[in-house]
This record gives sequence, structure tokens and C-alpha cells, in this order.
Amino acid sequence: MNTRAYAVMEARKPLVPYEFDRREVGAHDVALDIAYSGICHSDIHQAREEWGPAIFPMVPGHEIAGTVTSVGASVTKFKVGDKIGVGVFVDSCRTCENCVAGLQQYCLEGMTGTYNQLERDGKTPAMGGYSNRFVINEDYAVHIPANLPLEGVAPLLCAGITLYSPIKHWKVGPGKKVAVMGLGGLGHMGVKFAVAMGAEVTVLSHSPKKKDDALSMGAHHFVATNDESVFKTHTKSFDVILNTVSAEIDIDKYISLLKLNGTLVVIGLPGKPYAVNVGTLLNGRRGIAGSMIGGIPELQEMLNFCGEKNIVSDVEVIKADYINEAYERTVASDVKYRFVIDASTI
Amino acid sequence: MNTRAYAVMEARKPLVPYEFDRREVGAHDVALDIAYSGICHSDIHQAREEWGPAIFPMVPGHEIAGTVTSVGASVTKFKVGDKIGVGVFVDSCRTCENCVAGLQQYCLEGMTGTYNQLERDGKTPAMGGYSNRFVINEDYAVHIPANLPLEGVAPLLCAGITLYSPIKHWKVGPGKKVAVMGLGGLGHMGVKFAVAMGAEVTVLSHSPKKKDDALSMGAHHFVATNDESVFKTHTKSFDVILNTVSAEIDIDKYISLLKLNGTLVVIGLPGKPYAVNVGTLLNGRRGIAGSMIGGIPELQEMLNFCGEKNIVSDVEVIKADYINEAYERTVASDVKYRFVIDASTI
Repeated sequence: MNTRAYAVMEARKPLVPYEFDRREVGAHDVALDIAYSGICHSDIHQAREEWGPAIFPMVPGHEIAGTVTSVGASVTKFKVGDKIGVGVFVDSCRTCENCVAGLQQYCLEGMTGTYNQLERDGKTPAMGGYSNRFVINEDYAVHIPANLPLEGVAPLLCAGITLYSPIKHWKVGPGKKVAVMGLGGLGHMGVKFAVAMGAEVTVLSHSPKKKDDALSMGAHHFVATNDESVFKTHTKSFDVILNTVSAEIDIDKYISLLKLNGTLVVIGLPGKPYAVNVGTLLNGRRGIAGSMIGGIPELQEMLNFCGEKNIVSDVEVIKADYINEAYERTVASDVKYRFVIDASTI
Repeated sequence: MNTRAYAVMEARKPLVPYEFDRREVGAHDVALDIAYSGICHSDIHQAREEWGPAIFPMVPGHEIAGTVTSVGASVTKFKVGDKIGVGVFVDSCRTCENCVAGLQQYCLEGMTGTYNQLERDGKTPAMGGYSNRFVINEDYAVHIPANLPLEGVAPLLCAGITLYSPIKHWKVGPGKKVAVMGLGGLGHMGVKFAVAMGAEVTVLSHSPKKKDDALSMGAHHFVATNDESVFKTHTKSFDVILNTVSAEIDIDKYISLLKLNGTLVVIGLPGKPYAVNVGTLLNGRRGIAGSMIGGIPELQEMLNFCGEKNIVSDVEVIKADYINEAYERTVASDVKYRFVIDASTI
């Protein structure tokens, strides 16, 4: 299936228009016309080989929202015309205990990423969402509620689920005090979800400049952490801290903000290991844990929740020929709060 | 109340015989004759000022088992002749949310340690268990089941509860796979409790030499970690890892042994922060957390459990004039598995 896209032809080069063929629609596949595709910071890390050797040409993109255009003979979950979303992975082993539990992101054989990875045949490079069409096995795609605008939905498929899943797992809700570290593409979704769950939400941001945005998204408190004294005044305050910051930070100061049995959940991937002071963990049975996107059942649950609560990502819609500039601005945190490519311009 | 003891007169000096006066028995106090007092590695750290400035003269000891000799006018919990235990703390604020919840070890104002700390009057140095008598507020002491030998009970008051509490908190029991890192004073209690709770228990020890002991204590598996290949063969194996090792280790290798949602619980206090690789946490929603002794209700629960299951520490009973040699052997891990001072020799 002929597909137009934007691709990185070799590491660290700008993205350029590119054409390739996707597989034809198999019995269990659905084809979709992509409407919008989000730009995730991880796209940039991979396009620039900052996370190790990558596969080129690379068509990045794993925040995909579109409309079903055809379905395979055995497809039961979708029909032509359905709004459909595709996220960070397109396949997994399906048989390990984690896949069976619907936690395909933790597949013991490794999930198949939406791009920069070979498909499970071991030879076809997966090509991502910066393109006009997509083909996917129905089991790895989700329905998008009809009331939500597709451009605001696209980032839910990665940034959204990355926050929704730990918020559910660590039971963020009424009576819980939660802090969100960093108000970017990930953090702003954390605020929206935690507020919608009924928790008391504090944004921890380096400088005061995002205060108005945080409060307008529903956060109850805003703390600028460039004032060191806040680590004393807010010690032992939070049940859960959602850390979306991938820059290097003194994690110990943030762990000290947790109350008894609190957990700091790491979502962003920093370049270096964290130096974790064990005494700070012992003092209040505190923990630090990781969370990685979410499985297909939870992805659908999140989209249904977003439909009910009218939650989408704040986005700047761009044309495809602006991707390279959008990359620079994403690295500079100069986006409110996610770039989304209008796939009709590819 | 005149008390004979062994004390450290200044940092890093050997312990010597020492006499001092304890307070007389107040309305809410009980007095006890100490029968046995365990030697904890933390005694040595503090006697040597390895954990920061300490208070001298210091009478160490916070694993105390004895018999009640008198009770204050308002005491209701104990009577003369009762077997009684005292652990790591002798007081706390009693009013913070953690104290009210029975988690006095996490008192928001700080618990009052059994020694090397001022009592809550802010001036009286607390004096520990390497002594023949003790006086304590009844609320901070526990009953010892009659069927247990006091010398094996003494180490339960610190080493025991330090393992029992996380084993309960992280729900180690039937169907759970748990690993205990290090088979020493702490680790051997972890094995006994985890086995008694019905979990599948593996001991991770540097060399194979403790294998027979581990299996005789009920461990189901023993893995010698000086063979690096075991970190591959046992990847994603354990629900809970109890880390009693305070030596510097590559913590990332051990985190990789956790399965989905697994937690590595740190109990020993290493000298340096751990370098925690966030990718290893993300890969399986793994966590690392701390746990510190246990509160008074849980201490009593543990002793009752030990009475039912006939669990005590494996000990070497020593005379008081052997304490300095016992310290050297403890540092060298040359003890099976806890030195206990016969207080009649003080």
C-alpha cells in the first residue's frame, strides 16, 4: 500500500518527504487514513540515535489518530469509518503472562515498537505515524470516542497513557495528594488526569512561568522549585509524585517530599542513573518506581475516560514541512504542550 | 536506679565496664532485669561514629529481652515476672498521624532511639541494652511469648522486626517468590519469616558457603551471585527482593531480577547512594523502596507469630567481656547469626 511519509534517512539528519509501501490489509488488519500524528520527545531521541543504534530510513511517530478505511476478512472490532488510534507498539508475543494480562507493554519477549524496530517477522522495519496511511492488526488499535477532536487525541496515545497508567496503578484519587514534576507534553496530561480523578494536585516546575497554565488546567497548587526552601516547606507532603522530567536532577530532594508509604514514579528517562540515598527511602517507607506507557485494555479505558470527561491534550497543529523546526522547539521545551502533524499536509 | 553496663567512652574506643543511674520507675514505667541483649551492626556504626557525631559515654544495645521487676502505679500492660522486650526506640511524639497509626518508627518528630539520643526531655542521654537493668514507658515495650528462649528472642527486637515488617507490608506469602539478599543477622530472619509465611524463598549470597545453612533454615533455593551468569538466568524472577546487604553493590543487577510490579526493599544502609538505572525500573514497573524496623503493634504481632511458629534468631551467647571481640567478628561477618550478650555477666 503506497504511503507518503516524512523520514529520517540517517541519524541526526533533518526529516524529508519519503514514500514507501506498507503491507496490504491482512485478514486481521485494519487500514486507516491518518488524520494527526503527535511529535514525542522520544521520536527525537531515536531520530538522533541518542538511545543507541537505530534503523534508517526511519518514519517516526507513535501517537496516531485517524479513520478506518478498510478492514480484513476476520476483523470484528472495527468497521470502515470508525475513529481509530494507534500508540507506541503494534504487536507483542501475545502468549507471555504479561501479554495475557493485557500488559503488552511489558511483554516478556519485548513489544514491537511502532517504528525503529523490526516487526515480528524479524525482517520488516516498522514505519511510524508521520505518514498518511497505516495498517495494523486490530488487536493493537483502539477506538476513539466520537466527541473528541482527533488532533487533541493523538498525543493521548503515548503522552496520555504514560500518565494515565501510573495514576491508576498507584490509585491517585480522592484524598490523595499528588505532585507532577514538569509541565510539558507528559506533565500537562498528568495534571488533567489527576484532577479528573479527584486528587489534590500540585505542579512542581523549575520556574514560576508555567503557574497560570498549571492552575488553568485544574492544578490546585503550584510550586517553583528554583527556590530551594520549598524542599523544606513541602517535606513529607505527597502520596505520589509523577516525575516527567528527563533532565538530570537531584532525585533525593524530590523523594524527601513523599509522605509515609509514598512513591515517586519515574516516567521520563534521564540520561544517567539516579543517585538514590537509601536513608531517604528508609525514612517513611518511601519508594521510587518506573512506569512505561500502558497496555491495550488500559489504552481503551483511558480513551473512554477522556470521552466522558472531555479530556484531550493541548496541541499546536503543524504542517509536515515544519517538523524539523518543531523538533528544535520541542528540545527547547517551547511548545504548549504537544506538536501534532496534520497528516493531510504530508 | 543503679545500673551496670558496658559503654563506649569516646568514639572508636573499646567498650569498658561502666556504671550509671537510670531514672526511677515512674507511674507509666516498668523496670526490668535484662537477660540478654543482642549486638546489632548499627551498634558498631554508632560506637565508631560512622553515622555522624554520637553521644558519649554510649551504652549501645537495642535488642533487649528480660523480666519485669517492678511496675509504676498506672501500669496496666505488664506485671512483675512478665517476660518483656524492648527494641530500637523507647518513645515518640505519640500525636502525629504516624504515631497514632502505630507506626512510631516513622514519627514525624522523630522516634527516640534506645541509645545515642537524648530522651524527649531534651537533656537525658538514652542508655541502651548492654546493661543489667532497664526502665521504659510501658507503651514502648512488648510481651514475649513464654515458650521462646530469651536469648533467641533478643535479636527479634531489631533484626527480626526489620524483616517481618516489610514481609508483611509487601504481602510476602503463598504464591509469591521472594529473594533474600545476604544471609546474616538480618537475612536469616528474613528467610525464616518468609518461609513461615508460605512464600517460595531464594537466598542470594555472594559465595556458596552459606548454602547448607540457608536450606536448613527452610529456603527453597540458593543462588551464589559471584557467578555473574545468574543475573541472566534469574532475570524477572522475583516479586519481592529483601536487600539486607549494606556493602556497596551494583543494585541495577538485582533490580533486573524483579518481575512485573516487583519491589526491591532496602533494609541495610549502604555508605553511598545507589546508582539506579531508570530504564530497569520502567521495564516491568519495578520499584525500589526502603523499610525501617516496625511499630509497637507490629512488634507485638511479630512476637506472637514467633511464639506460634517457634521462630527465634540463631545466636551465639557471649559474656560481656567478649563484646569487643564480637564487634570485630561482626564486622567480618563471622557470626552465626547474631551475638547476644548474657547480661548476667555485665
